[in-house]
Parts: sequence; structure tokens; C-alpha cells
Amino acid sequence: MIKQEQEKLRVVGKSSPRITGALEASGLAEYITDIKIPGMLYAKILTSINCPYAHARIKRIDASKAEKLPGVVCVVTHKDVPRVAYSSKALPAAGVYDEYILDDKVRFKGDKVAAVAAVDEDTAEEALELIDVEYEELPAVFDPEEAMKPGAPKIHEAKDQNITIRVRNEWGDIEKGFREADYIFEGRYETSIQAHCAMEPHGCLANYNKITGDITIWSTTQIPFQVLRVVSEVLGIKMSKIRVIKTFTGGGFGGKDEILVEPLCAFLSVKTGRPVKLILTRKEVFVGTRTRHPAVIYLKTGVKKDGTLTARYVKAILNGGAYAGATPGVVGAMSTREIGLYRCENVKFEGFGVYTNTPVAAAFRGYGNPQHNFAVDTHMDEIAEKLGMDPLEFKLKNTIREGDINRGTGIKLESCGLQECMRKGAERIGWAKKRSSASNQKGTRRRGIGMACFMHNSNVYPYGSECSSALVKVNDDGTATAHFGAADMGQGSSTTLAKIAAEELGMSLENINIVTGDTASVPYDPGSYGSRTTFMMGNAVREAARDAKMQIIARASKILNVDPGKLFLENGEIKVRGKDKRISISEVVKRTLYSTKEGGVIVGKSSYSPPSNAPYFGAQFAEVEVDTETGQVDVLRVVAAHDVGKAINPMAVEGQLEGMVSMGMGFALIEEMLLDKSGSTLNADFLDYKLPRARDMPAVDTIIVERREPSGPFGAKGVGEGGVAVTAPAVVNAIYNAIGIRMKKLPVTQDRLLKAIKGGN
Amino acid sequence: MIKQEQEKLRVVGKSSPRITGALEASGLAEYITDIKIPGMLYAKILTSINCPYAHARIKRIDASKAEKLPGVVCVVTHKDVPRVAYSSKALPAAGVYDEYILDDKVRFKGDKVAAVAAVDEDTAEEALELIDVEYEELPAVFDPEEAMKPGAPKIHEAKDQNITIRVRNEWGDIEKGFREADYIFEGRYETSIQAHCAMEPHGCLANYNKITGDITIWSTTQIPFQVLRVVSEVLGIKMSKIRVIKTFTGGGFGGKDEILVEPLCAFLSVKTGRPVKLILTRKEVFVGTRTRHPAVIYLKTGVKKDGTLTARYVKAILNGGAYAGATPGVVGAMSTREIGLYRCENVKFEGFGVYTNTPVAAAFRGYGNPQHNFAVDTHMDEIAEKLGMDPLEFKLKNTIREGDINRGTGIKLESCGLQECMRKGAERIGWAKKRSSASNQKGTRRRGIGMACFMHNSNVYPYGSECSSALVKVNDDGTATAHFGAADMGQGSSTTLAKIAAEELGMSLENINIVTGDTASVPYDPGSYGSRTTFMMGNAVREAARDAKMQIIARASKILNVDPGKLFLENGEIKVRGKDKRISISEVVKRTLYSTKEGGVIVGKSSYSPPSNAPYFGAQFAEVEVDTETGQVDVLRVVAAHDVGKAINPMAVEGQLEGMVSMGMGFALIEEMLLDKSGSTLNADFLDYKLPRARDMPAVDTIIVERREPSGPFGAKGVGEGGVAVTAPAVVNAIYNAIGIRMKKLPVTQDRLLKAIKGGN
Repeated sequence: MIKQEQEKLRVVGKSSPRITGALEASGLAEYITDIKIPGMLYAKILTSINCPYAHARIKRIDASKAEKLPGVVCVVTHKDVPRVAYSSKALPAAGVYDEYILDDKVRFKGDKVAAVAAVDEDTAEEALELIDVEYEELPAVFDPEEAMKPGAPKIHEAKDQNITIRVRNEWGDIEKGFREADYIFEGRYETSIQAHCAMEPHGCLANYNKITGDITIWSTTQIPFQVLRVVSEVLGIKMSKIRVIKTFTGGGFGGKDEILVEPLCAFLSVKTGRPVKLILTRKEVFVGTRTRHPAVIYLKTGVKKDGTLTARYVKAILNGGAYAGATPGVVGAMSTREIGLYRCENVKFEGFGVYTNTPVAAAFRGYGNPQHNFAVDTHMDEIAEKLGMDPLEFKLKNTIREGDINRGTGIKLESCGLQECMRKGAERIGWAKKRSSASNQKGTRRRGIGMACFMHNSNVYPYGSECSSALVKVNDDGTATAHFGAADMGQGSSTTLAKIAAEELGMSLENINIVTGDTASVPYDPGSYGSRTTFMMGNAVREAARDAKMQIIARASKILNVDPGKLFLENGEIKVRGKDKRISISEVVKRTLYSTKEGGVIVGKSSYSPPSNAPYFGAQFAEVEVDTETGQVDVLRVVAAHDVGKAINPMAVEGQLEGMVSMGMGFALIEEMLLDKSGSTLNADFLDYKLPRARDMPAVDTIIVERREPSGPFGAKGVGEGGVAVTAPAVVNAIYNAIGIRMKKLPVTQDRLLKAIKGGN
Repeated sequence: MIKQEQEKLRVVGKSSPRITGALEASGLAEYITDIKIPGMLYAKILTSINCPYAHARIKRIDASKAEKLPGVVCVVTHKDVPRVAYSSKALPAAGVYDEYILDDKVRFKGDKVAAVAAVDEDTAEEALELIDVEYEELPAVFDPEEAMKPGAPKIHEAKDQNITIRVRNEWGDIEKGFREADYIFEGRYETSIQAHCAMEPHGCLANYNKITGDITIWSTTQIPFQVLRVVSEVLGIKMSKIRVIKTFTGGGFGGKDEILVEPLCAFLSVKTGRPVKLILTRKEVFVGTRTRHPAVIYLKTGVKKDGTLTARYVKAILNGGAYAGATPGVVGAMSTREIGLYRCENVKFEGFGVYTNTPVAAAFRGYGNPQHNFAVDTHMDEIAEKLGMDPLEFKLKNTIREGDINRGTGIKLESCGLQECMRKGAERIGWAKKRSSASNQKGTRRRGIGMACFMHNSNVYPYGSECSSALVKVNDDGTATAHFGAADMGQGSSTTLAKIAAEELGMSLENINIVTGDTASVPYDPGSYGSRTTFMMGNAVREAARDAKMQIIARASKILNVDPGKLFLENGEIKVRGKDKRISISEVVKRTLYSTKEGGVIVGKSSYSPPSNAPYFGAQFAEVEVDTETGQVDVLRVVAAHDVGKAINPMAVEGQLEGMVSMGMGFALIEEMLLDKSGSTLNADFLDYKLPRARDMPAVDTIIVERREPSGPFGAKGVGEGGVAVTAPAVVNAIYNAIGIRMKKLPVTQDRLLKAIKGGN
């Protein structure tokens, strides 16, 4: 395997446009809104968004008027649906089963109350207004620290407390560590509710066949097999009767990594015996789906004069909103990544996922890193300053290195290019020179630079389940088809995986076809989340392709009468090492597929489990200009230097890096879902919820560092999440560098910064 | 394996309704006519059915008027299509590449001339009338014996002769054999053009995506992977870009075992960039698709006084019509089956497939057997009479037996229940008593009984390619999904295969889901023909299920800490032999699918090649009443005793037996496509082409003989073809028994028989 990797790569490592790009760009890709089935009904959900209470019991609900509206086929309330609890979290492990298709309570403003299926959308919407609901107010709580206190209003009656998870991770002796410290630093950090803002809203189309009991579900999901499992559990339909098809998807970012619309939509189809389509409105996506967890993080760090960390205590409180969803996963993940990024012998992490009467927070690109990273990397900046050290030097001294055990997980790092990222990034942005010139500025527009580091995992080993599977079929014209369950949400993973198959099979990318996203056509895969696709499915596709390749080689060996060890695949041919003897793949397949003795289909198969979570790393450097009169922050330039192991498709890696900078900048400066005191979301649309736009983007320099991961496919690790976590601390550290004001709450909006400047910090 | 088979079977051997039955019966099954895609065009073919010449060159063709008709999107003639020849035959081996999407010649009345794609069917039909064609007459030949002669008009210029295939199969010394004979018998036998008469006409829907170059083809085909291959070859599209989906199919009988409509339909979709649907009319199905080969068979048999056969010479001439299609296969198959049925030391077979200017004959249930069997089994009846022997006794003395080498193929019979079929059938119909009473009849309504035997193969080994593949996935609720390419055309093979998977996995039939007929979702399989599905795909599905089972057992062994050899699957559980220890399949999958260490998807895989063609056998007995004044024959009763190895689904086997009797009766008495002297088909519709209907059916007694085939899945062999070959000779022998008139030409229509009676014969 290693031998081959040392040979020249022909497809991997070269930039390729997305294999589905032309289809997407031409408007011919079929998204869920494009799919229509004869007899299809349209569903709409009545939510509690206009209910005066964030927390209430449904005292009475009367759908009779709605049911009588011509064109309405069915109206369902909590009285009609199966009383089966489920968890919207991707994997069953540590899932909290606190959701129902519809419940007799509403737990936040925007919770589901009833649903209508009608012949068109207008009728369905009209019917919603005819549903008569009487609520009984229950006491509400919005602040997670309040919600954790004994005596706080109980949001889920079956739970003792409003705590969905409590995670503790510690090593060494924290008390001893603090005793050994020369200095102790403490800080409280706070982050906002960020919305995923995928361009495509969540949607589902369910088609139940009342004769056979089969159901087909088209969905925008990142996790088709989990949709299958949850629909099976909630509706009591056998898994073998359910087929889930992931359609072309307009972005996920973790927001489609939970089971949100499918159980309700499938239930409506079962009840009506007709196809039912449910597409959420933008407002419903903002309020009713999922957000990033707003977090409060307390840090306490002991440090020696020379910059050695002696102790660290972290307390993280994550507001998960009204349902648990992925909160246990996010808190758990938080406890294993940033916590291990900087070497420290004595560490204690305590994390809490908390129920409140706010919209639900769950999986979101970065999965806990952006919050934790913001706290840790600005805290480190502060410590460096107090120690009189350059923050880059301070971090270079303390970051984890290749060969270290990641104390957060107990796993040894087989590859780590973080120091290289830091050094290359610093050089590119001109760190030393710009740092030193910052203090001499005058006037109202001041520049500064800052930086931050991250570590993220390429899969969820060893905490969740980790296994990916693929099949690779070889056709008799020498082309191949790879079948896998990984969902491409727009990030280009299908292209990456096709490239891996092409490389392993010695074929051109054009000769690889993919079948994906259809549970009837691919083997089980948990889904696309946790930065796992390139690493996990990449390994699975590579192993399946290798299995197919070995079958081709075995047959070619007989035909050519050459030892299989001497054969290799290149450019569609099986060649003999060191000789000019060859046969095309097509010829081998044709000769053996149709003959009885040599016969057989070539299907390569794999089921891959990893030996490691293969962390990937990166450092970002930001240069900002702050207007001290207005509080306006312009990000002038970001250098993103990321160690991705091996860039299978450099063009796609660059795209990920730029996208993460954009999302990280939004998190740093402007993005925030605002709630009023009653729990109502104030800015659930793109007019009022601000995102960075093209004109807001700084110049982004991407530096791809390739520190080969031995367990990765062609050395590759993950790429698409960690970077979103470092733009904010880099920007905030740069603001401090520019104007000497340390912001501990995100986003650093113009008014918040101006207030800090005016308040004299 | 054998050990397990000796255990109690729970699913196999019990009758089950078709798993798709409710869907089909309710009208909710989606046939090709039901599928509509936005923007879809409708195609129609201009044929030469109204051309005055059966054989002509297209001198001039002008589509300009048709192209201008509003609603017409495209008109194509031979000038527009790729000049790539293909064979419509299922497998590439021995294929004659003599067909084009459209050619500049017409070779029979009904040949393709041009095609139109338009916005609706009416417009497309109207456009056909606007295509202006000028033909140049070429000399035509309709009689195969004439067509074989030197100097006959050449139908395909590239061929030396009008002979598509010449097959010779011989053993022993035929001259010596005839010298040793006490008597020599000779006869000439002739059969008609029988039409398949599947209720659903042939159809195709092709959807080419001009952006990606992918094409999806829905088809009524029996051979999805061959459609994929031929479309790839003819249109130059990579196999990985083509997906073929077999829709629910309303009967095939071999008529959908050739590539007929797909290349043209796919080409129209490529040309227009839009989805195009082409459904043939009933008339086009009769004239323009395929028929059974009308055959002339010469037999010469040497026999000793004691009934020992000493020599046999067979000369078979099959009229294949204007294109070769499966003719080489049919003539080849003929040379290996009936020729081996009766023991004879000196045999010579010569078979000819011949081009004429008539509609094309090709694959049809029985595949050469019905013609050959009619000749041989009425010839044997004649010999018995001349020898003064009872024909049953004569045949019992001479039929091949278990352990014999089938001289036709050189393969040893591992199982043969033919003698049992003959004895049980004779007993059931009361052979001895009824034979003896036939000669004492008076009056104009006379009764008689006759019988005939057959041998048919369960696959095409060793002549064609033989290999079938399947995948079996196990879901975490303990259900399973079997993926296989075998096409269910209505015969119920999907149910049979699901039962095999259920039995092997110790699951109930309800817990098995199937994915089939979609080349994107199943591994390669050549298709459904040659009685191969139960045997070949049954073995493949069983092996894939066993592979999955072994994975389940390995995991259960670790969990239960019990040696894997002691474990077996039953009722959804893994049980320990002799102990009350168990765990459910669901539990094992759940525990191991989601955990890292034990992890992995359970996908069982197989690629099965057979050791034998595993012939299956049967004998049919017919009792008839002949009205000597009118020539009317009433078939009163048929006893069909068939050795199927093991009836996986007895209900389906009985259905096959009854269906074959019906088709065989039609072949015996009424079915015949009639051509006039110019080559025009006279009865290309259900008003004029007569089929047996329910009221024509005799009482059918089915006797299932189960002589276990060691290489068959649970002992099963094929079932669905051989029986269609024996009803005709049984009926014709019964007519002779009733009135002493021996008919040598099929069908024995009322007027033909009356003429024979009047002629005094």
C-alpha cells in the first residue's frame, strides 16, 4: 500500500471540477422542490410561533374547521400521531428520546402543533389558520445557567433536571497544577446563536404505498440511513420496506444532520395513502430546525513564567434549547478536541447541555469547536500578553505535536502539521513585522493582526460508531461504478470519492460513475457529519476499489500468465512491472464476465473501521482594520494554513477553506439570532439576520499543508469543519492587537465594539 | 449444506402468493405506460408494413414535411443514426451483428424505416404519414428451404448466404446404426409461426441528460444489463453513464429477451435532449418484434424389433426471418436437448438457421424444444405403433436416466425424475384402460389419449456464459434486502428468490425485501431466459444469503461465546444447537453495526457459476375428443407431471405448469401467424390471431415430482419452459389414438384436420 502511494498519483492531488457541477450550474440538477408525483399533497406545519407563550400545554385543539376546507385531505394533531419518542440526533448512541412527531406541549416559540396535508400549498396554509388551539401557559426559562438551577421550570416532565448531558474529562491533578502555577488566569466567554443558513430549506417527500406497505422518502438529509432507522422506529415500518433517497442538496452544515421533517411527512403519507411533500419556509428553517449552541465558557489556566501550562479548568454551558438533539454529542466532542490542543498535564473539563425554552441547537459545522476555540485561543492570547510573550511563540511552545498522545481522547497523533501551518501562515502574513508595528499607530483607523489554531477529528472514533462501507462494480467497457452512502450536500465529497476510486483502479475520473444517497442502492453508512466523509468513506471506497482491483489482477494474471505481484493498473490497463506487456481492464472483464469458468461479476466490497480519529489541524491569521469612531471592523486579509493530510482535490479543499473563513467571520462579527424576552426570534429571515456576503470577504490566502496521515486514504484527513472555529479568535485577537480591547462575547458587532471603546474597556 | 437441507424447511416448499401480487392486482404497480417525466416526448416508428415489397432498398426518403408539423421535435431516418451494427440477441457470444437502429433497406414487411419524436402520440402518428419514402424493389424469398439454395436473393449483403447458423452435433456411427436397424422410419414435421402474445406490448422510456451525458432507460426488457451493453456499444456512451431500469412487466415469454426498442428510443432521447417514450402498438408487437421459429424437421430413425433405437438422423431448418437475433442460440439449443432425451448410440443432428423476408423469429419459451419435441415425440409414437408396442412402454424403455451422460451435451445427469413423471402421469390419467378402449369406439365423437416427454436445461451451461450474482444486506431490525438482476416478467421469480433468501437466513418471507431490475442497484446478471432464474439466481441469492449468514454467525459467536459451528439461524434468531441459548439477528446487527470494534455492514455477496446445466424433465398426458364430422378437437384433460427438483414455491410451479399447457395447446391446435404470398402478416391482432382462452382450457392435473438436483438451490431445477413443448405431441398422439390420423403439421386446426379426415388419410 505504502509502496503504491509513493508511486506517481494521477488523479488524486490534482484539482478537478465537481463531477455534478455542470448539472448544478445548468439548473438541471433535481432538488426536492423539483420532484413531483401524480396525486402529491402538500404539507404545512402549524407552529407555536404566534403563541404568546414559549412554554405551554395544549389544552384544547380543534381541527374540525380546517378539515372541512375543500382541498384539505388530512389534519393531524398530537392526538393522531404515534406516541413514540425519538431522538433527532444522527446516531442512536447517547441519543435522548425526547421528541414526538407532535406533542401536547410546546416548548419554544416555533414548536410544532399540528400539520395539514392538502392538494396545494395555499390550501394547506389557509387550513392552518382554521385550527383552533387553546394554550395553558407554563413557566418558561431562557437562560441556561438559570435553567440548571434546582427549582427551575421543568421543560421535559420525564427528566429530573433541565440537563441533557453532563460531561467530565480530566487528567492529572488540577489542584496540584494550580499550586505549581506562577500565574492564574480566568475568563468568561460567550458566543451567539448562529444559524446554518444553507441556501436550500429542509424538505421531504414521502410516498407510502398502502398496498405493499413500502415507503419511499426523498429528503434533503445528510443522513439517509438514520432517517430510515428513525422512520422505522417511530412509524413501526420494517426497515426493509423503507427506501430513503437523498436528493441534490443545497447545503447542510450540520443543519440537515438531524431527523427533522421526515417522521411527520412520512406519517402524513401513511395516513393519507398519498405522496406528501413538506418543504419548510425560511422562517421555519431559522426558528424551527437547529442552530449553533450559544455557549458560556469559563476558563481558568495556571501557567509558569516561562509559558508552560500547569493547569486548566474549563466549564462549558451549552444552551441546547427545547430538545436534546445532538447536544450530548456536541458537549462530548468539545471535551476531546480543544482540550487536547495545548499541552497541559493537569486538566479538568466540565460540560453541560441544558434545556431552555429557546429554539433548538444541535450539530453545526465545527460541532462545539467554534465556541470552545474562541474561548481558548483568545484566552491564550491574553496569557501570552501578560507573560510578555508573542502569542505565536507562546502557542508554538504549547501546541500538541506528532507522536503526542492527545490527552483529550488518549489517541496518539500519527500525523500533525500544526507547527508547519503556524510557521507558514505567520510568514505569509508577515507576522513579526505587523505585530511590532501595531503599537505605533495613530488616528482612528487602526490595524492589527491575530491568530488562532485548531484541532478537529476526521471521524467520531472512538466515541460514536465508526464504520463506512462501499461497493465498486467494474463494467465490461472498463468503467466502474462506486456505490456509497456518503451524502454530498454541496461540499463536493462525491467528486473526492470518485477520484479516490479512479486512482486506486488506475482509471480516469471520467470513467468512474457513482451511485449514492439511495439506501436501496448502497450499503449502510451512518451519514455525512463529523468531517468523516473523505477519511472514512474515502478509506471505504479505496478498499472496495482495491478489492475490485485485486479481482481484476487475479484474472489478468491468468490471462497474461504473469505473477499477480508484478501487475499494476494504470490508464485503464493492467501492466506488467518493467515489461511492455499489457491488457486493458475492459478486455479482462469482457473475457471473464461472460465465460463460465473464469466467470463472475467484479464487485469490490469494503466495510472500514478506523484505527484512529486522525485529527487534522490548522492555523489562521487575520489582519483587521478597526475604526475607533464607529466600531466598524474590516477584515483585510486572512491566511488559512491547514494540514489536511493530503488534498485529494486541492480545488475543493481551497473552497472549503474559503467557505470556513466566511462562516467564521460571520460568527466573529455579525451572525446572531436574537430572541426577545418572551422567547420570540426577532430576525428569522435574511433581511434581518446578517451573513457575510461576497463584498465583505477579505482576501483569503490558503496554504495547504500535507502531513500524510498513515491511516488516511492516500494520506488524507478531514478538512471541512475545524477551520470555521479559528477565524473568530484570530479576528478578535487582531482587534485586540489593533486597539487593545479584548472582546469576550461574540459576535463583535459594531455597536458592541463601539460600546466597549466608549466604555474605555 | 446438505446437512442443513435435511433439516426442516420453513419457507421453501410452502406455497406463497406473489410478493408483488397485491400491487399488481390493485392496479398500483407502475408499468412503463404509467411513467411520465416532465417534457417527455412520444416516439412512433414508420415501418414498411404498407410497403408493397417485402424486400426493398430505400431509394429516397424525405422527412422535411414531417419535421415541419407543429409538435414534431425530431424525425430520424437511416441517414441520421450511427452506422453501428448490433445483435439483438441476449448475449454477445455467437451474436450476428446484422441490425442497425435504422437501415437503408427493409427486409420484411414491418421493418423499421424512420422514427418521429413529438409532443404527443397523435402528432407523432400524423408525422409518420408525412414521411415520403421511395422504395426500390429487391427480389424476396419467404421459404427457408428456397432461401438456403445457391442463387437465392441475398437478404444481408455482407453475408455469403442466407444462413445465420449451421449446427452439427453427432456421436457414434450413424451409418452403422442404420445398418443394424430392423426398421427405419422417416418423417417430415412442420410447425407454425407462434406469437408470444404477452399482454403488455414492448416499451421503452429513455431520458438522456445532455449536461452530464448520463442516460436512464426504463424498459420492459427481460435483460436489463444487455440493454445497457448494446446501448453503450451502439451509441458510444460509457457503461458507467447508463442506467437501465426494468419496470413491472406484463409477460415476456422470450419476446422481451432481445434488444428491440431501446437503441432507437435512447438515440431519440440523445438527439432531442429530452425524455422519449416509445410503446409499440399491438400490431407492431405481432409483426415487428419476434415470433417462434417456424420449423421443418426431418427425422430418420433406425430401430430394432425389441424397440432399441440404433440410429437417428435429424435435420432441422428454422426460418429466422429477416434478422438473426437469437436464431443461432435456438438452433444450438435444439441440438442438445431433445436429441439426448432418448438413448441412442448413433446420432447425427444438422440444424440450419435461415434468413428469409419474413418477420423475425427468435427466443420464445421452449427455445427450439416445442418444434423438435413435436417431431420426436410423435415420431416415437408412430414407431411404437409399428413395433406393436405401447408408446408409453416404448418411451419408458428408451428415455435417458439418472447417471446417464446426456449425449447432447456430454454432461452427466445428477438427477432425473422422468420415469417417475411418466409412471405417475400414466396412473393419474388411467393410461392402460383408456388406451385399450380407444379402438372400440363408434359414432362421430371419438376419444383418445397420448403422451410426450421433454428434457430442458436449467441454464445455458456450457454453451453460453453462465454466471449470476447477488448481494444480500442485513438491516439492523433483523430484516434483509436481496439485490439481484433477475427480471420478474410476471412469472413470480422475485417471490421464489425472496423465499430462498428467507430460508437461508432463517427469516420469514415478510422480512425479505428485494431490489431488482435496476442496473444501478444490483450486480451484473445476464438476464432472465433459458429457465435459468430459479437455478442460477436462486444459487446466487442463496450463496449471498449464506455469506451474510456466516457474518452474522461469526458475530453472534463472539457475543454468545459459542463455537460458530454450533450456531444456526431460525425465525429471526441465532440459536445454539441443543441448547436454549439464543440472540436475535436484529440484536447482533445493532450491536455490531454501530460499534467500532465489531463494526461493519453485513453485505453478503456471491458470483455463482454452475457445474452443470441441470436438466429438468416432464411428461404430459392428454385426453381428447375428436368430432370426425367437423374436425373439432376438444382437449378434455391434461396431466402434467414435471420433475422440478424442488418446488421452491409450489403455487408458482403449478401456475407455470398450467400456463405451459395453455400455450402448448395453442401451439397444437390454433396458434399461427399467417403470411400472404407477398410476406404481409394477415392476422396481426387478437381478433384474428387465436389464443386458447379460459373456456378452452382442459382440466389440468399437475403432478410435481421432486427429484433433488445436487447443484440446485435447495435441490431446485428450472420449470418454466420445457412443458410448453410436450402438450402438442401429447395432443397429436391422442388424436391419432382417437381416430387413427397422424398429423405432422402444426397447428392441427379444425379445417386442417377435417381435410385430413375427408382425404381418408
